Amino acid sequence: MHISQFSDYSLRILIFLAASDDVASARSIAKSYGISFHHVAKAAQFLRREGYVAATRGRAGGMWLAKPAEEISVGAVIRKSEEGNVALVECMKPEGKRCAIVPVCRLASALRKAQQAFFSTLDDISLADVTSNKPALRSLLFAA
Amino acid sequence: MHISQFSDYSLRILIFLAASDDVASARSIAKSYGISFHHVAKAAQFLRREGYVAATRGRAGGMWLAKPAEEISVGAVIRKSEEGNVALVECMKPEGKRCAIVPVCRLASALRKAQQAFFSTLDDISLADVTSNKPALRSLLFAA
Repeated sequence: MHISQFSDYSLRILIFLAASDDVASARSIAKSYGISFHHVAKAAQFLRREGYVAATRGRAGGMWLAKPAEEISVGAVIRKSEEGNVALVECMKPEGKRCAIVPVCRLASALRKAQQAFFSTLDDISLADVTSNKPALRSLLFAA
Repeated sequence: MHISQFSDYSLRILIFLAASDDVASARSIAKSYGISFHHVAKAAQFLRREGYVAATRGRAGGMWLAKPAEEISVGAVIRKSEEGNVALVECMKPEGKRCAIVPVCRLASALRKAQQAFFSTLDDISLADVTSNKPALRSLLFAA
């Protein structure tokens, strides 16, 4: 059971920005986590498009949280970042190879129900909740 | 968000056996679903090992449900079939590349909580629940 690296990196960016309370570049975020700048930049683009992050370009540019961490739901972020990736199993993909029993299968709806329970749990958790330990996060992110 | 093809095929085998109320070979199950015999055989091996399915070898051999469909929890099957695949994100893999904030990250526990909600939803759903429409399932599985 997996969620995408894209969702993972989007959440890492938000955690970084909430912990730092400051402007940060995609490059510095990628460096702190030891992950690809290119992937961070792509996730940052998504976060800007969805209104979670604001940014300025240029040498002194960077990004910051566009709204308070209390108002950013982890569930809402993941629902959006997983939007093209909601097919738990092959038969749920629109372009997927169709299973013989699709028209009458009751397993698919059970799986969808379980997936909704997954997202619902995260709907109630805010970015502020997962970054309430800012000093500890900062000590690891800004150590170098 | 995905679960493995292995889980998918394991569940398809159980649905087939519950719908047929009969002995079936891995070959006939693979043929009915239009999927790889090799993958069905591997999933069947897992189901035997876990006591969901009984089987005899040989020309006239085949497999059947080792217990009533009412006693087979979809959640229990998926928990077991996803056992080596529970890492929702990279940092949850024991051999995964460690994220800088692992020791203090509160997102990981939020994700684990959501994953538990996913499995819990399926714990209460039995194989009998998802195959209560046997005639409809049969008409699609045994049409050819």
